[in-house]
Amino acid sequence: MTKAIGHRGDYRWYLEIPTRWADNDVFGHVNNVVYYAWFDTAVARFLMDAIGLNMLASEVIGFVVETQCRYFAPTSFPDVITAGLRVAHIGNSSVRYELGLFRNADDRAAAEGHFVHAYVARVAGRPTPLPEAMRTALAGFRVPGNPAPR
Amino acid sequence: MTKAIGHRGDYRWYLEIPTRWADNDVFGHVNNVVYYAWFDTAVARFLMDAIGLNMLASEVIGFVVETQCRYFAPTSFPDVITAGLRVAHIGNSSVRYELGLFRNADDRAAAEGHFVHAYVARVAGRPTPLPEAMRTALAGFRVPGNPAPR
Amino acid sequence: MTKAIGHRGDYRWYLEIPTRWADNDVFGHVNNVVYYAWFDTAVARFLMDAIGLNMLASEVIGFVVETQCRYFAPTSFPDVITAGLRVAHIGNSSVRYELGLFRNADDRAAAEGHFVHAYVARVAGRPTPLPEAMRTALAGFRVPGNPAPR
Amino acid sequence: MTKAIGHRGDYRWYLEIPTRWADNDVFGHVNNVVYYAWFDTAVARFLMDAIGLNMLASEVIGFVVETQCRYFAPTSFPDVITAGLRVAHIGNSSVRYELGLFRNADDRAAAEGHFVHAYVARVAGRPTPLPEAMRTALAGFRVPGNPAPR
Repeated sequence: MTKAIGHRGDYRWYLEIPTRWADNDVFGHVNNVVYYAWFDTAVARFLMDAIGLNMLASEVIGFVVETQCRYFAPTSFPDVITAGLRVAHIGNSSVRYELGLFRNADDRAAAEGHFVHAYVARVAGRPTPLPEAMRTALAGFRVPGNPAPR
Repeated sequence: MTKAIGHRGDYRWYLEIPTRWADNDVFGHVNNVVYYAWFDTAVARFLMDAIGLNMLASEVIGFVVETQCRYFAPTSFPDVITAGLRVAHIGNSSVRYELGLFRNADDRAAAEGHFVHAYVARVAGRPTPLPEAMRTALAGFRVPGNPAPR
Repeated sequence: MTKAIGHRGDYRWYLEIPTRWADNDVFGHVNNVVYYAWFDTAVARFLMDAIGLNMLASEVIGFVVETQCRYFAPTSFPDVITAGLRVAHIGNSSVRYELGLFRNADDRAAAEGHFVHAYVARVAGRPTPLPEAMRTALAGFRVPGNPAPR
Repeated sequence: MTKAIGHRGDYRWYLEIPTRWADNDVFGHVNNVVYYAWFDTAVARFLMDAIGLNMLASEVIGFVVETQCRYFAPTSFPDVITAGLRVAHIGNSSVRYELGLFRNADDRAAAEGHFVHAYVARVAGRPTPLPEAMRTALAGFRVPGNPAPR
């Protein structure tokens, strides 16, 4: 039962990420590892720019507990990638993001995946509920009933 | 229904991978992206050393179609990581690997995940059945009925 | 005898490069290694966009024979870096670029360095004179008597 | 006036660093940027293992102020690199390391370069003399009158 490949409009927040020369591997395509650097960058910028989290000083720290990527079509330097992001689930102390990566002007994703943060208190280092303001801000980027990757 | 965290003995082939200084992120732990560079390196070395595939000249090329990682415990430079690998599924033209990453002497995995290659003919660029010799060699590292991550 | 730190106007071609989350190291600054990924990307885009070199199919291939970077001030994710580039020397079969990296709107460089390519024939693999068209195109970005890093 | 290429015996401390699959670029050689990740890793491990510096808790922090690399011969995954290191200069608040990178069993360097740290007090953030114990430890790896790259 294969899932459909997503479109730009399936996401709620976007970031342009230009490729770098060293992103390409020996086959002339961006290496599979680099896609996670793009996910990582998109989530960090989303938290800073859209949610207002100060990642170096906030009372909570997000630890990455699971990531996944499905690759549909190659990308290559000097492509410019648009990362699309939506909030798929807001748990008590965790958030699941779903991400799509779009090559240049393509509307169909070159890759899609997810990224799950579990939050701990910066000082105590123990799991902690998401601050209420953060929960509210995240909800604005939620896509209920979305065609979610697993 | 959470899955149990794997042990070294759950894997069939191993590679030591020392961490690098730049693997650490601002929180003093290896960044989530780097785990995929370790998966990637383990699969490549496995194919070269255990299966005898010449990745630059073989008649078939493996494209990465899906990867996933679940993170259980942090690692940090200068840890030495042992990557464990097992063959979870051999399809007509694809192979699914499962990988565990073990920190220093730990027997419990710091992270586990999977990595799926789909093979195409190097020249034609179209999906192609795995060469029989490769299929046979891979079967030696298969773990039937393993406690597989999704 | 310390050299002055360069300004944007000391360069002849520019490329914006956004930082990525994983560029930061444990001290919260972009790791020294990443600056070379920016140099590398700037030179590659310069050759493709300004000089018209097809790096995957050209008759000549540039091998990197020397690089250097001096670091003046830290940069951090999510800074946007502008790479400035000038052609410092065009030899028989080599080209020396000088590069400056500018943080956000700063006019003073955060880092400056150089990057030297030696060209070989793609097929024969031996040193080869630069194609005349390439030499002419490069000359347009030359800064004679520039305040060159060593 | 070209300098001779160094040998293993020209260095005073060594670290084995295996290549990773993603180190290779589109030409099938390790990308020039990666050599600095090896320098960086060698200096960090040297400071931790040979000098006894706790990089996350020491009273002083080393900022990288200059790095350079000259590339003599290509390396490729799955080569194992041996990084050789020597202390070339111990200043009041800075240290200059010289490094050679040796491919597999080669005695001639594939690349050589340098790496300069300037030390600041962790709390005050201002340049600070090297702690005396560190200066003494570093002196044991000094090569006076060595055939130093610039």
